[in-house]
Amino acid sequence: MAKNGVTIGIVGGTGYTGVELLRLLAQHPKCELKAITSRKEAGLGVAELFPNLRGRIGLKFSDPAKSELARCDLVFFATPNGVAMEQARTLVDAGVRIIDIAADFRLKDVALWEKWYGVKHACPDLVAEAVYGLPEIHRERIREARLVANPGCYPTAVQLGFLPLLEAGIVDMDHLIADAKSGVSGAGRRAEVHTLLAEASDNFKAYGVTGHRHEPEIAQGLSGLAGRAIGLVFVPHLAPMIRGIHATLYARLTAKSDLQALYENRFAQETFVDVMPAGSHPDTRSVRGANFCRIAVHQPGAGDTVVVLSVIDNLVKGAAGQAVQNMNIMFGFPESTGLEQLALLP
Amino acid sequence: MAKNGVTIGIVGGTGYTGVELLRLLAQHPKCELKAITSRKEAGLGVAELFPNLRGRIGLKFSDPAKSELARCDLVFFATPNGVAMEQARTLVDAGVRIIDIAADFRLKDVALWEKWYGVKHACPDLVAEAVYGLPEIHRERIREARLVANPGCYPTAVQLGFLPLLEAGIVDMDHLIADAKSGVSGAGRRAEVHTLLAEASDNFKAYGVTGHRHEPEIAQGLSGLAGRAIGLVFVPHLAPMIRGIHATLYARLTAKSDLQALYENRFAQETFVDVMPAGSHPDTRSVRGANFCRIAVHQPGAGDTVVVLSVIDNLVKGAAGQAVQNMNIMFGFPESTGLEQLALLP
Amino acid sequence: MAKNGVTIGIVGGTGYTGVELLRLLAQHPKCELKAITSRKEAGLGVAELFPNLRGRIGLKFSDPAKSELARCDLVFFATPNGVAMEQARTLVDAGVRIIDIAADFRLKDVALWEKWYGVKHACPDLVAEAVYGLPEIHRERIREARLVANPGCYPTAVQLGFLPLLEAGIVDMDHLIADAKSGVSGAGRRAEVHTLLAEASDNFKAYGVTGHRHEPEIAQGLSGLAGRAIGLVFVPHLAPMIRGIHATLYARLTAKSDLQALYENRFAQETFVDVMPAGSHPDTRSVRGANFCRIAVHQPGAGDTVVVLSVIDNLVKGAAGQAVQNMNIMFGFPESTGLEQLALLP
Amino acid sequence: MAKNGVTIGIVGGTGYTGVELLRLLAQHPKCELKAITSRKEAGLGVAELFPNLRGRIGLKFSDPAKSELARCDLVFFATPNGVAMEQARTLVDAGVRIIDIAADFRLKDVALWEKWYGVKHACPDLVAEAVYGLPEIHRERIREARLVANPGCYPTAVQLGFLPLLEAGIVDMDHLIADAKSGVSGAGRRAEVHTLLAEASDNFKAYGVTGHRHEPEIAQGLSGLAGRAIGLVFVPHLAPMIRGIHATLYARLTAKSDLQALYENRFAQETFVDVMPAGSHPDTRSVRGANFCRIAVHQPGAGDTVVVLSVIDNLVKGAAGQAVQNMNIMFGFPESTGLEQLALLP
Repeated sequence: MAKNGVTIGIVGGTGYTGVELLRLLAQHPKCELKAITSRKEAGLGVAELFPNLRGRIGLKFSDPAKSELARCDLVFFATPNGVAMEQARTLVDAGVRIIDIAADFRLKDVALWEKWYGVKHACPDLVAEAVYGLPEIHRERIREARLVANPGCYPTAVQLGFLPLLEAGIVDMDHLIADAKSGVSGAGRRAEVHTLLAEASDNFKAYGVTGHRHEPEIAQGLSGLAGRAIGLVFVPHLAPMIRGIHATLYARLTAKSDLQALYENRFAQETFVDVMPAGSHPDTRSVRGANFCRIAVHQPGAGDTVVVLSVIDNLVKGAAGQAVQNMNIMFGFPESTGLEQLALLP
Repeated sequence: MAKNGVTIGIVGGTGYTGVELLRLLAQHPKCELKAITSRKEAGLGVAELFPNLRGRIGLKFSDPAKSELARCDLVFFATPNGVAMEQARTLVDAGVRIIDIAADFRLKDVALWEKWYGVKHACPDLVAEAVYGLPEIHRERIREARLVANPGCYPTAVQLGFLPLLEAGIVDMDHLIADAKSGVSGAGRRAEVHTLLAEASDNFKAYGVTGHRHEPEIAQGLSGLAGRAIGLVFVPHLAPMIRGIHATLYARLTAKSDLQALYENRFAQETFVDVMPAGSHPDTRSVRGANFCRIAVHQPGAGDTVVVLSVIDNLVKGAAGQAVQNMNIMFGFPESTGLEQLALLP
Repeated sequence: MAKNGVTIGIVGGTGYTGVELLRLLAQHPKCELKAITSRKEAGLGVAELFPNLRGRIGLKFSDPAKSELARCDLVFFATPNGVAMEQARTLVDAGVRIIDIAADFRLKDVALWEKWYGVKHACPDLVAEAVYGLPEIHRERIREARLVANPGCYPTAVQLGFLPLLEAGIVDMDHLIADAKSGVSGAGRRAEVHTLLAEASDNFKAYGVTGHRHEPEIAQGLSGLAGRAIGLVFVPHLAPMIRGIHATLYARLTAKSDLQALYENRFAQETFVDVMPAGSHPDTRSVRGANFCRIAVHQPGAGDTVVVLSVIDNLVKGAAGQAVQNMNIMFGFPESTGLEQLALLP
Repeated sequence: MAKNGVTIGIVGGTGYTGVELLRLLAQHPKCELKAITSRKEAGLGVAELFPNLRGRIGLKFSDPAKSELARCDLVFFATPNGVAMEQARTLVDAGVRIIDIAADFRLKDVALWEKWYGVKHACPDLVAEAVYGLPEIHRERIREARLVANPGCYPTAVQLGFLPLLEAGIVDMDHLIADAKSGVSGAGRRAEVHTLLAEASDNFKAYGVTGHRHEPEIAQGLSGLAGRAIGLVFVPHLAPMIRGIHATLYARLTAKSDLQALYENRFAQETFVDVMPAGSHPDTRSVRGANFCRIAVHQPGAGDTVVVLSVIDNLVKGAAGQAVQNMNIMFGFPESTGLEQLALLP
């Protein structure tokens, strides 16, 4: 590690995960940004694409072919799916540690990954080695990891919300329901008709009820927590807002428990998981721009259904913020270094 | 009925249900608006409050004490809860028919109503007589009704969505889940902090998980369809948009069925319920300003959970439009008279 | 004209102007839609693309090559710029009347048009014949026109706002300022990054200060009203909303006048221009979905600057609604036929 | 000054300026928050009202009568207009320095203030002493001030935008035009109908064309820059977004100048004013949550009208951020201390 801290490279970085990562790293005291690569935007100043970075990030996008990624301590992939798996082997062999914010290394079952992502995996051996970067579950393994698979946004909100119930084994694990709502930035900075303001504003809809890539990722994580295969119905929705995920989780209780205490105890040591007081309804804006997951747990009418409300900012705890949290763990910094921004409210 | 059609009075009408009712009635060929009363706004031109009505509605708000409601064929109550029950008896006795768009006559169990609405009911005998105005279920009784209790917005979307499943008796009726999302106009045109644009925009949250007034109304309707008491978890959410309800419904299947055919057959004769093709995800904007409920039915992974997506405009099929639909039924007009507006998209 | 009214063809129609035109025509009693062509979407049901039309428009997009446009009474071009000029000659020669909602025939100066639109004009002779379709100025010529050039959205709001001042000749015509704000649907239904909800929502910006295609169109119209060349600074802005244009116009008074009376008198006979009472501030939502232009005129501090506020729905009075208004004039229908929808508020 | 830095008291703090000030102070390394008073919310935890502060601000609102404001180094007034003038004298006499984020001390002409604010001023002598807290103009006087009048949001954006032109004396100072657009948070966290999401979303309107309180404040500042009375037409608009002001400024040039160089030179040493490259159009979101004013200057068609685009976040550079900037100047900290957050984009 250089005296200025970790030397950092970013591959990609022209999307929303990229600009959010840059915003966070620019305020991180222990890292030095060495290179950011983009084939398409090579030569363009980063701050020309993202004017919020003017005066703070002087770097230009560089040609991946000529970049110095191999001399960095850590490389973030803020790329479309399928890019990291092509480059990871070379970097790892050069001693560079990697955090892939895309999905290439999230699913342990390579065949399942190939089915959902529609391409052959270029690097299955590293899949086995990769550590799933949800610190609240895998913190110790992240510490030593060479390759961290940063979780998806929905999977972060859903897994953290179900975690105490599954660890405690007090719900029907064959019939979990996750009704999740996401802001439009979750679809990325890609020109598409259905995410135009004129299409997505003042509108609400479900999508992917017949199947969504985050479902196997969530199921893998929940099964890990449960110690057995679980059954999940996952229904994502597009909400007319920029940032935020609100997961509303339903499970059938199979045993009595003080749910509020269960949640508070499980997350008592977690800096970035905030269990709200009983009866609360967390707003997504209460985490806008901040690396928090806020959770409330309800048992309506004292019946046998538990309802968990879990909110994150999809670009922070659901992507770039969690990546920085993983970096802090990997390099031995206090976990909240550079992640102390408060949510922007209103 | 006068030669110009039904003579109409409106009590209230300074809220969103009121302006929407005026918009629809102004374009209805068979009715004549005689009076609109508001104690607070008496003397003010309706179009001064709602400039979209300029040039089309010349009426002024009049003092309720001096109004000619008793000489109308039909009076709509577009009032806060608790107003209609005070005035209904006198009007009914005078031969005036009533559609209450508020909640005074929706719950048959008066004690339950008093518990949720926090006041003593002024007119319990009319509760028994009142017909619940969901035409797709109670059309025949609406035809002759003197007093129609127009359904709530959430209850309309949820009941129409569950209807075929409950009539067919093919789901676990003790564990129905309704995860519902509403635009902010559902909270009415009242000055409150939590529905300010600066609070509710770019934000998403659940509310009332511990209890919401629409839950007993929905449970009453679903129990009627099921022929037995049902169990329901109802979680409403506030979405950052003006209009629209999206209900995502979950039920456990107890018998096999061709769900798509079940829904299509049940609603084949219904003008205002549109069953979408298999695999669809209805947008709320596809009904913005229109008196439709669009429904899609899914069975994710061919598992034992059915997922129903049901969308309405909370101010139209969820309030004023359904009221006009009820009026058409009560006065023998074709059911779609004055309700042929297409949704505004984009 | 057939007994069912005007037979109509639409070229294009997969954009926002197209769906809005379809929404209006579906509710117009005097026209019959015969064909809608789209090379890209040929074979697709119109209502599959625009679900708000389900159940009301059964037509499919057809291949332009095989269409029956030449047998229609009237063809609307709801196409990108540059399409109508290629097809207009053939249709006009076949006796079909045309309303071009795009920009091909708006500028009388062909060289100027070619400069701003970047292509050679395919049909300059028809430019001379085309009538600029702003009924409040050119109604009589529209009546007999074979080819109507439907005005742009900004030009409609700005010209109607300045009209009485220029006709009266009471302002400094060399220094007109139009500060205009538009909803995002004005950019069309094209996949572009800058109009994504995640980019354009909760944001406000000017654009095109260095030059915008609507500037020469506005200048041409205002010069026509003034009887001399005028000087105009036109600054468009992108507002985070779907529909609506708000033009704030500034001019230096050179003579005293009762401005309120001037405006009221000028538009007294105009169905679709509503001069608001003195001191008003029209909302764009007061015309959302409706074919109105609402105008208020102010003279702050009784100084020598007049401020005019002019609002329209860019897709209705600024595009499809004005096109239907022109059709009504061309075919001798009452001008408001099919245009009686009230604005959706809230 | 205590070893932990400046000891701070806040009066008010239940509105948007208050929560934004708390967000900034919580991240400021050189200040210690001692007390926050609110008569209405006394006893409530600050983080209960504003959940984004959970875990970071443990303070409760305290009763103003019992507070320890007089023992603080600095008191911010984040109150409605008219509160600071009642309490300022006592605090100043006790040696406490004050930053009033409300309007009580902004206008030097007390009679003019009383006309616009509708009450008698309680403390006219301190008006004379108060320093207008726009650092880019009055930095030296702020350094020593006992009482700083923090500028309004519109006045900040408009004055910074016009500043170089007026100092250079190259425009017609009798006919300045400021067409300004503000997000809804500018109206404060008050329950009012016109700022409900259902009213203000998907809508755009001007307001206060007949007169707005910020007009005399702007005129006072611009006259100071010009060294003579100026003439101003100020038209504010309400834009459907949470934060942000976009001021579009128009002036008639009376002399030639390299405008880009003029602006760049004037602000070259200013940390918080960013002159964009020629031809730019600053987004309000490029300053969302950040203490910047971004400015672009245009001369359309090389004519005699200059157009300046000036954007700020109304709650940061337009209120709380500028207050912290003033605090830094008053207590000798580097001016950007605690103000290094980057704008949240998207």
